[in-house]
Amino acid sequence: MTEPNPPAPRARRRPVTMREVASAAGVSVATVSLVINDKKTARIGEATRQRVWAAIRDLGYRPNAMAKNLVQGDSRFIGLVADAIATTPFAGQIIHGAQDEAWKHGYVLLVANTEGNDDAEAEAIAMMLEHKVRGIVYSTWYHRPIEVPGSLAETDFVLVNCFADAPGVRAVVPDEVSGGRAAAELLLARGHRRIAFVNTTTPSPAREGRLRGHREALAAAGIAFDPALVLDARPDQAGGYAVTGDVLARDVTAVCCHNDRVAMGLYDGLRDRGLRVPGDVAVVGFDNQEVIAAHLRPALSTVALPHYDLGAVGLRVLLGLDDPGDGRVALACPPVERDSVAAPSAARPAAG
Amino acid sequence: MTEPNPPAPRARRRPVTMREVASAAGVSVATVSLVINDKKTARIGEATRQRVWAAIRDLGYRPNAMAKNLVQGDSRFIGLVADAIATTPFAGQIIHGAQDEAWKHGYVLLVANTEGNDDAEAEAIAMMLEHKVRGIVYSTWYHRPIEVPGSLAETDFVLVNCFADAPGVRAVVPDEVSGGRAAAELLLARGHRRIAFVNTTTPSPAREGRLRGHREALAAAGIAFDPALVLDARPDQAGGYAVTGDVLARDVTAVCCHNDRVAMGLYDGLRDRGLRVPGDVAVVGFDNQEVIAAHLRPALSTVALPHYDLGAVGLRVLLGLDDPGDGRVALACPPVERDSVAAPSAARPAAG
Repeated sequence: MTEPNPPAPRARRRPVTMREVASAAGVSVATVSLVINDKKTARIGEATRQRVWAAIRDLGYRPNAMAKNLVQGDSRFIGLVADAIATTPFAGQIIHGAQDEAWKHGYVLLVANTEGNDDAEAEAIAMMLEHKVRGIVYSTWYHRPIEVPGSLAETDFVLVNCFADAPGVRAVVPDEVSGGRAAAELLLARGHRRIAFVNTTTPSPAREGRLRGHREALAAAGIAFDPALVLDARPDQAGGYAVTGDVLARDVTAVCCHNDRVAMGLYDGLRDRGLRVPGDVAVVGFDNQEVIAAHLRPALSTVALPHYDLGAVGLRVLLGLDDPGDGRVALACPPVERDSVAAPSAARPAAG
Repeated sequence: MTEPNPPAPRARRRPVTMREVASAAGVSVATVSLVINDKKTARIGEATRQRVWAAIRDLGYRPNAMAKNLVQGDSRFIGLVADAIATTPFAGQIIHGAQDEAWKHGYVLLVANTEGNDDAEAEAIAMMLEHKVRGIVYSTWYHRPIEVPGSLAETDFVLVNCFADAPGVRAVVPDEVSGGRAAAELLLARGHRRIAFVNTTTPSPAREGRLRGHREALAAAGIAFDPALVLDARPDQAGGYAVTGDVLARDVTAVCCHNDRVAMGLYDGLRDRGLRVPGDVAVVGFDNQEVIAAHLRPALSTVALPHYDLGAVGLRVLLGLDDPGDGRVALACPPVERDSVAAPSAARPAAG
């Protein structure tokens, strides 16, 4: 390590200057600036404009985006605050969707990762406000209610994967109810009638919404809801493993899990008891967490959270391209079929 | 959806203007501007400076970062190009490290996700150059050689998790050799002497480096290297599952896997044969991919890739705070002990 000296320049091509463009086009620097900033009011002939643009092309001149922003009076930045890009791939998918949509409309995303730290969040929003962002997309990695940070109100903003009970606060969220329905339908379509529902112990929109969707799907299939088939478990592998005995004691042929990690633990619990997925018990997950769902043995049928679309639609709402009215946009959670669901077997597995 | 009309402003607090600061401090707008931009050459008395800063604090004025950048002649942006933030948590960890270090030194990261797409990459770099970034950190989600994109040479840049065989191109990479050594040492320390090494079928610095480290650790422990114990497998769960029989046919007590996904597949293969980890076979992974390693049963002992540090050190090299000479900085891959390694059992497991 050395003291903070600027490093020696390394084989850096010298950038083309506006002066060189002016000289090549035979005009003044001021004229080049007016052409670049597309000042229609300036009295510059079409031939001159074309000469300037030709010189820009020939020399490979890159206009200074910041100077351009200043002249145009507003920036082409949009801020995106994310709380967990280092720990889950979910935030990355939201960023991917938001970035694609931002670039499509000529905006650049200023991404800030907070890892849930309040100071980092305050710093991120302040930085975005200093850069006069067009607005901020504020996202969380799991769907939950939030308190809107005060400084967000200094600009236009949209919440993504979270929401607030405050008037006029726009939010784009996953439709947990549609997801719960989709998960149950994967099983109902194969003839399962007695289905355990392993819910999370943590109160959340996912906890309420997915169960509601599950009940709707049962009702639509003419199956009476049996509260005894709903079990709570920690929303991870250990929770899924621990709940296996209770699930089997319910004499079910299939299980809807709160998420893919619970399904991963349930797989282990079933295997320890000599039971096979899907032959003995069918299993459906939730989240479509690729590294788990696609690679369990057998690969896990699950329901996808629409993270990419949450980011893209959030951006569109911010730019006024999509109109959520004054409320929330809820995006469907589509089923992803793999190999963990078969028709119920005639022979019932032994309990627990 | 509606046409692209700007949405109505929502409860937006009007930002404080420079004019209001000037009026509160009893000075001209030009004086406020000179104080904010810290023009030492301007003849402004200390008392006036302090009055301006007090007004800025009292009113909560946010200087326009873009205007400030223009006055100062260079931007406070650093670009970060990442190729897989939507598909792995690895890129997110690099971004996290780079962002922390950038903020510490007063820089803002312009993050661009390319998902490996050449057009997106060209667009990302052009956008960064237009914003006159101080430099660019160019990162890949797995360690590999690259061709440096031509436009990178228009600014200062550092490669992170990748490298190029070109003079003066600085790179920060994981030390695969140290990682391979660390993995083997987890097993050697418990008394294992006959250790299978499941390598990847894909040529890469990880393939060569980890095996080299493995051999170094064996040599240091006085164990002759047996090439028959090195097996190739697809670097994922399916590969680990498929190679299980061949591993067991080698009559080993322990296995070093190319990555955690291979270990996950090997767990399944061992379980299908009625063998226990770590009682019958000890297993070590690589990557410390949290969602797998921490949650397999038993939890997987593995080696961590230093993604956060790759990002942070990359940033420091770019800013001249760390000096790699003209070459590469290689960061150690530390072992992460969990529960998949025990001493070799006296009873040898039956082969395959």
